[in-house]
Amino acid sequence: MTAEIKAMIFDVFGTVVDWRGGVTVACSQVFQRKQIDFDPFAFADLWRGEYQPAMERIRTGGRGYVSLDILHRENLDRVLEKTGLSAHLTASERDTLNHAWERLPPWPDSGASLKALRQRFLIAPCSNGSIALMARLAKFAGLPWDAIVGADIARDYKPQRQVYLASCAALGFDPHEVMMVAAHNDDLEAAAAAGLKTGFFPRPSEYGPGQTTDLSASGNWDICAQDMAGLAAVLGSD
Amino acid sequence: MTAEIKAMIFDVFGTVVDWRGGVTVACSQVFQRKQIDFDPFAFADLWRGEYQPAMERIRTGGRGYVSLDILHRENLDRVLEKTGLSAHLTASERDTLNHAWERLPPWPDSGASLKALRQRFLIAPCSNGSIALMARLAKFAGLPWDAIVGADIARDYKPQRQVYLASCAALGFDPHEVMMVAAHNDDLEAAAAAGLKTGFFPRPSEYGPGQTTDLSASGNWDICAQDMAGLAAVLGSD
Repeated sequence: MTAEIKAMIFDVFGTVVDWRGGVTVACSQVFQRKQIDFDPFAFADLWRGEYQPAMERIRTGGRGYVSLDILHRENLDRVLEKTGLSAHLTASERDTLNHAWERLPPWPDSGASLKALRQRFLIAPCSNGSIALMARLAKFAGLPWDAIVGADIARDYKPQRQVYLASCAALGFDPHEVMMVAAHNDDLEAAAAAGLKTGFFPRPSEYGPGQTTDLSASGNWDICAQDMAGLAAVLGSD
Repeated sequence: MTAEIKAMIFDVFGTVVDWRGGVTVACSQVFQRKQIDFDPFAFADLWRGEYQPAMERIRTGGRGYVSLDILHRENLDRVLEKTGLSAHLTASERDTLNHAWERLPPWPDSGASLKALRQRFLIAPCSNGSIALMARLAKFAGLPWDAIVGADIARDYKPQRQVYLASCAALGFDPHEVMMVAAHNDDLEAAAAAGLKTGFFPRPSEYGPGQTTDLSASGNWDICAQDMAGLAAVLGSD
């Protein structure tokens, strides 16, 4: 099965990097500086909570494609409004805070695992993040991608089928030659339906200590591992 | 001037890699194996000679966007026909030969110069080559891009203005924050007209020993250097 795999494409937020930890630290720094009394973990969760609804409007055709950078910025406004913190941050301070998504820490095994997998495969993020965001994040987190595909290429958001198909096409491979890797079962379900191979490992603290979802594979994925290092041990070479 | 530059985008064929040398070697190997008596340098020049006319049909709207991989493959058919060599190569052998464009040698200073420039800037190819082609070429030639932009992003070919603008937008920068680097004056002329900064150095043997064009800057470019190492010495760090 793995013999025909030529490329591996990766979900990024949660699978490769710790968005909750990174966003929380960034919020925490701003809150301290501005003397805002609000739990930064809760704020990060609220911010991320606006993620799916914002993309859903675009997936369903209610809005034309705009990049996730713009959605993140709009979502930040919405959360500041909801939490009564709007008066505390200027537009320019919000722009700066929005860059938190470009400075997320990789999970401990991500860098070395990607490096090993890159010896055998063409590797790329297939994220809902834009090319601009993915390029800056890769530089910050040391992620050695060969290319960047995903939402910007398809001008739509996962799990829309077209995002997986356009990403494979942009890399010059047929879907069956590409493995989608994610710590999220729904991402893999959509990728499998589009004809891609699938690789899963859990990131059990992505959503914090009380995480109840995606702790294990819920589908018959081609490869399941304990973490990315485990996946690299099966598929990568040094 | 250089203080506001955030990203550098590069022409690739001729500027970063030696397309003529690489394609000639690939043709030479095939011709030897198939006992074809034809000068491989002349064949490479004929193949590249079809490059601009093929893109021009797309630039002028006579044909919808197709990637350079497809144009290269069609151009190969055309040159084999013109040279009377059609009977010698099967479709599959032509497909294989077409991959020569993914295995072009970098000019001697390209790898180290890009690595130095990458310390200070986000770097990406802005080529007429596809994402698939650029990713494979980067892997082969060791080019440490942060992202890949260019024709595939804009679905049009340089020197169309939109290719430069879409490439800057995909990287999340305004044109004046981006420097286009090329060994070709016409590429820089179009980039400057689109509002980008410009960097030039000659590659005096790109077209072979008798080269007469692009031996020096013909415009008032922001930076001119002797080669890419010279550009990196001015702008890069380390």
